[in-house]
Amino acid sequence: MLTLQSGLKLGPITLAYETYGTLNADRSNAILICHALSGDAHAAGYHAGDKKPGWWDVMIGPGKALDTNEYFIICSNIIGGCKGSTGPASIDPQTKKPYGLSFPVVTIKDMVVAQKYLIDHLGIKKLLSVAGGSIGGMQVLEWSVLFPETVRSAIVIATNTGHTAQQIAFHEVGRQAIMSDPNWNNGDYYGKVNPSNGVALARMVGHITYMSAESMDNKFGRQLIDKERVGFDFSQDFQVEGYLKYRGDSFVQRFDANSYLYITKAADYFNLAENKSLVEVFKRTAEFFLVLTFTSDWLYPTHQLKDMIKALKINDVDVTSCEINSSYGHDSFLIECNEQESLVKNFLKKVRKEKKGHA
Amino acid sequence: MLTLQSGLKLGPITLAYETYGTLNADRSNAILICHALSGDAHAAGYHAGDKKPGWWDVMIGPGKALDTNEYFIICSNIIGGCKGSTGPASIDPQTKKPYGLSFPVVTIKDMVVAQKYLIDHLGIKKLLSVAGGSIGGMQVLEWSVLFPETVRSAIVIATNTGHTAQQIAFHEVGRQAIMSDPNWNNGDYYGKVNPSNGVALARMVGHITYMSAESMDNKFGRQLIDKERVGFDFSQDFQVEGYLKYRGDSFVQRFDANSYLYITKAADYFNLAENKSLVEVFKRTAEFFLVLTFTSDWLYPTHQLKDMIKALKINDVDVTSCEINSSYGHDSFLIECNEQESLVKNFLKKVRKEKKGHA
Repeated sequence: MLTLQSGLKLGPITLAYETYGTLNADRSNAILICHALSGDAHAAGYHAGDKKPGWWDVMIGPGKALDTNEYFIICSNIIGGCKGSTGPASIDPQTKKPYGLSFPVVTIKDMVVAQKYLIDHLGIKKLLSVAGGSIGGMQVLEWSVLFPETVRSAIVIATNTGHTAQQIAFHEVGRQAIMSDPNWNNGDYYGKVNPSNGVALARMVGHITYMSAESMDNKFGRQLIDKERVGFDFSQDFQVEGYLKYRGDSFVQRFDANSYLYITKAADYFNLAENKSLVEVFKRTAEFFLVLTFTSDWLYPTHQLKDMIKALKINDVDVTSCEINSSYGHDSFLIECNEQESLVKNFLKKVRKEKKGHA
Repeated sequence: MLTLQSGLKLGPITLAYETYGTLNADRSNAILICHALSGDAHAAGYHAGDKKPGWWDVMIGPGKALDTNEYFIICSNIIGGCKGSTGPASIDPQTKKPYGLSFPVVTIKDMVVAQKYLIDHLGIKKLLSVAGGSIGGMQVLEWSVLFPETVRSAIVIATNTGHTAQQIAFHEVGRQAIMSDPNWNNGDYYGKVNPSNGVALARMVGHITYMSAESMDNKFGRQLIDKERVGFDFSQDFQVEGYLKYRGDSFVQRFDANSYLYITKAADYFNLAENKSLVEVFKRTAEFFLVLTFTSDWLYPTHQLKDMIKALKINDVDVTSCEINSSYGHDSFLIECNEQESLVKNFLKKVRKEKKGHA
């Protein structure tokens, strides 16, 4: 039974997770991966019948940055999600019906507390690293200050220590799109009609913020969909319109509308320095930080982490921060990228070496 | 009867317009103002009972940049709009019912052709200037190349010569929001229930793009709405959420859903260099250009007009371009701004002087 940040209780809970590689004898090679808004526990490799690998397959595998010959990689789906962990679509043991909106609002901290039970369950006293981007990066930050004794190093990618007004605003538009869909029915749509239009709209807005203006122009420009000229009607004329529609419609198939509400709300509530300064927050934290941002990420731009990096340095934490050149916007961290791979690989090598030095 | 770019015909048409100042004896002091997406003919001053003045009152009036002691200012509502000019909410003379979606899709060029009839009707052979920002700026550009003999100078503000994929994408989300609202009813909602949710959502998305991340943070940050702590529910917690909702809901009261579709489509279709280069396009155009952009405008950023400015210079057009320091994002051109006012004032002074020199 979890006692949540709201004061409410939730339990029993289920956490879906996957692992890659082998836990070594002294259980010192474990790395926890935290996923972003629409991610899941399936971070790498292929499940039977899959056409696409897990969401961070570019980073996780033998010889890759998160080398499964060296490390034991754990990825857990977050609570509030819809990919196997307890969330609003799960059956409430009290009522034997899906929770819907009776599921309590969870926070990034609640997600991390749940993950801590998993790490304890796996018998791991100390994680070599916790890594994640975007909302995954928020979990990494929360881990680093909530359980500093459990986290040797933190890999924080393309995120923020607390959402800005603009970041909240984009999320709120997505939530309003879902809640305006009559099929949403105040969250009670399971076994009925899905609020597909609302979810697709939310995803369309989100997707624009995950790409850069440059990558959209490189990919689509003003190219028409298989037409000789514009249609002079309200069908979709431009490839970018068709692409957004496709992304929206396919998201509907794989994601629960209520989970979208719960996870975006958790991200908006996240504020590492709620009642104190970042310098105070980081008084006890992981020993090593790698902070990565991307030149074209306008949703979580580099400058927003300046104060965090300074606060870590003031606390004499070993911080490496790099802005990676990439035109792919916020999604850069999910895309094959030599710079990100080398930086993570080298950082982990250093953390292991220094650890051995201390031992 | 207008023959539209689509080949369809529309007419008879009505254009709503307002004028400020006095047309001089040789009719040489007229300036046409073109409005943006949600604007109208009421650019300056107060109508009886108004609490707010017209949308560009900061710029238009005695002693102001567009000095009504010197100039005769004309502002016309665009066709396709819903503020007095013929648009989808107008009565179709054939059916005696509102057009709805049977209204033909109009383009920026069609809007300008309609405005040309107004200028002819007012007996004006040559406009001293045509000025506008955003979609208004697109009309200015169209005027300058479609009727170069009628336009002495062009004031082009915070716009683009053709929408990028990202600019199209944001508009398409707004359109999908409206068309997903069941009350939209394929455009046939007049006299029935308004598609208010869809229109409010479209406006919320739009509004985020009109502000800068910085101005949102300065105005709202993470401030809560009249609460001691977050609500741990899906009501609105943050002031920025309440503000967006307010902007969305108040827009519903004053704007027609179908007009939103028609005008955004016109903007997305606009592409000054459709079948040729910008250098070719500007072979015949206005004599003088003033091009203004704003440092914090991420929707229509400065760099997008570089090629246009170069193409004008290659054609030996007298171009002044300035990037104005402002934190207000795309909306900067609507907000009191000394730099914009001085630049427009000085530009018009120069155009008038040079004109006298030529005479």
